[in-house]
Amino acid sequence: MSTLSPWKDKALFTPGPLTTSLTVKQAMLRDLGSRDTEFINTVKDIRQRLVALGGGSDDYTAVLVQGSGTFGIEATLSSVIPPEGKLLVLVNGAYGERMLKIAAVHRLPTLVLRFAENTIPDPEMLASALADDPAVTHVAVVHCETTTGILNPIEIYGEIVKRHHCAYIVDAMSSFGAYPIDLVECGIDYLVSSANKCIEGVPGFSFVLARTEALKATRGYARTLSLDLLAQWEGLEGDGQFRFTPPTHAILAFHRALLELEQEGGVIARGQRYWLNYDITLTAMQHMGFHPYVEESKRGYIITSFYYPDHPNFIFRDFYEQLSAKGYVIYPGKLSHADCFRIGHVGRLTSADVRALMSAIAETLVEMDVELEKV
Amino acid sequence: MSTLSPWKDKALFTPGPLTTSLTVKQAMLRDLGSRDTEFINTVKDIRQRLVALGGGSDDYTAVLVQGSGTFGIEATLSSVIPPEGKLLVLVNGAYGERMLKIAAVHRLPTLVLRFAENTIPDPEMLASALADDPAVTHVAVVHCETTTGILNPIEIYGEIVKRHHCAYIVDAMSSFGAYPIDLVECGIDYLVSSANKCIEGVPGFSFVLARTEALKATRGYARTLSLDLLAQWEGLEGDGQFRFTPPTHAILAFHRALLELEQEGGVIARGQRYWLNYDITLTAMQHMGFHPYVEESKRGYIITSFYYPDHPNFIFRDFYEQLSAKGYVIYPGKLSHADCFRIGHVGRLTSADVRALMSAIAETLVEMDVELEKV
Repeated sequence: MSTLSPWKDKALFTPGPLTTSLTVKQAMLRDLGSRDTEFINTVKDIRQRLVALGGGSDDYTAVLVQGSGTFGIEATLSSVIPPEGKLLVLVNGAYGERMLKIAAVHRLPTLVLRFAENTIPDPEMLASALADDPAVTHVAVVHCETTTGILNPIEIYGEIVKRHHCAYIVDAMSSFGAYPIDLVECGIDYLVSSANKCIEGVPGFSFVLARTEALKATRGYARTLSLDLLAQWEGLEGDGQFRFTPPTHAILAFHRALLELEQEGGVIARGQRYWLNYDITLTAMQHMGFHPYVEESKRGYIITSFYYPDHPNFIFRDFYEQLSAKGYVIYPGKLSHADCFRIGHVGRLTSADVRALMSAIAETLVEMDVELEKV
Repeated sequence: MSTLSPWKDKALFTPGPLTTSLTVKQAMLRDLGSRDTEFINTVKDIRQRLVALGGGSDDYTAVLVQGSGTFGIEATLSSVIPPEGKLLVLVNGAYGERMLKIAAVHRLPTLVLRFAENTIPDPEMLASALADDPAVTHVAVVHCETTTGILNPIEIYGEIVKRHHCAYIVDAMSSFGAYPIDLVECGIDYLVSSANKCIEGVPGFSFVLARTEALKATRGYARTLSLDLLAQWEGLEGDGQFRFTPPTHAILAFHRALLELEQEGGVIARGQRYWLNYDITLTAMQHMGFHPYVEESKRGYIITSFYYPDHPNFIFRDFYEQLSAKGYVIYPGKLSHADCFRIGHVGRLTSADVRALMSAIAETLVEMDVELEKV
């Protein structure tokens, strides 16, 4: 089927699931009972380490929720907003739009401030919207919009949100673990992320870092059973167990991944590795004649969107398949107004993996007979 | 901490997560991209094999849903019942009660027929309830109530449900893969089960076997985004992908588990192994002086509830901990009216494991100075 080694998986330059270390995967070679003391202690340690990664304030707690990151977002939006509440969503990409879809299905009153996908939501417009509409109780924004790789300034929004006494929900799905985030400094009430992003675990659950007092005040708001955030927290705080069967293997992998994050030197060191992956990618791609979609000052180092090159022989599907056959998985775009593809910089990837991808892209352009104007 | 070998996990005599084969777990030592052809083909093969396990009728389709089994139940109940629908639930245990909780949080009009936990819901009462209340559109029941291990006659109910032109939802969480179930013969519209039960995969997702025409008629009914069953199916049917990040590793494990089920000789052979585990357990436990909660004619071979023995020295917590320290995990009870504990017979356990547990129980009774009247 392909020319790949049978013993090596393709390197994943995607927004997730990501390439993880072998030792993280090997942590799954066990079957633990979900009520077993060892498992309960593992969950407890994970929850403590997550709060520490968010700045370590005693005011916060961690809740693990089965399912993908979207399940964690839906658990939060459908559990913490009261019937008389109103949600303002800052949108500049597909994941902001997804929060709107969740709000719509639960019939939450919503105000949307929508911005172009290559621009950052304007803090002043947030401030005036909150001044104009005192009915708003909650504000939600995506930190790194994986749609484009743009990085939204969550600390600036947080100051405005707090000034208007609203609760603040941050989707830090693809940034948590790669960028330092201090929950207190950003004024965050609920931060949502997922096991298979920059902590470098495997997919299977999401997690919410919640300000405990805010979460405790949400009794009766949950609109589902499975995604009831307060009930899930009460289970974990009570007997230490999940209410419903936990993904025991993914949790063992995540625990190992947290230890490996610590071994690497924590969020700062991991961020530096990812930044280097990003920097090598950008330099090489621009040298080959590709152009990034987001301007430099707004770009994060999680994932980068590149325009399709303006050449008649460039067909993205072929480009993708030929790279995949060589062992490198990139990602299609998700933009509404521009033809782009994406290259991720996160997961257990080093400079050597990135350089190999860059070389494979150069080879593929030759194979496709796509000659670009070099920068 | 314990006298266990560091290289051998405890044997899980629980309702799940279960003990799985090493080869199933080793299938997780890979990172596949969720859009990769190999992964998409794996999901496709899993879905086909699941439909085949349900009798192989072309009228059915399989939908995988992230999360635990309860997520699959909630996905079904919250997605397939129209706003003007009414759900009748047959309840004789905690998992029937859980369906009622889900119905309540989604404000579904509900009729409950509740029976004692050691009795089987009476088919005649179902028939007369359906005759009396023509508003009922959907009937739901648990096949094997894991609360007690009782086996409810889903084929008999199915005939009645169809006669009244209702849709039929079966929670086959702990029976699918261990008991042959023919979806057509039972008149089932939606069967829900989970990866970490009798298929012997690891936890991380549930699955729904749905009558395709019934599912296709549910547009607009879903009350959540993450658990929208029709949208999830449309994603899997369309580009073969999950709408949101799938638990790729748990899915690779499940695929391997399905191959191992086939190697074992399918559902019949697996059911025979589980029955033997059950039979050895029952004989030995009764010989030691324990009494099962459910009478023989109603008992399944998935899990068995035993009364706490009537002896002042028997303290369940100590009994559980001493067995756990020896390497055997049993399960507490979940009954509302009787003090029981449970022993599961499923997962990658053989007669030798069961005999070892029986011997460990005999040892533990001696250690606890609990002398029971032998049968």
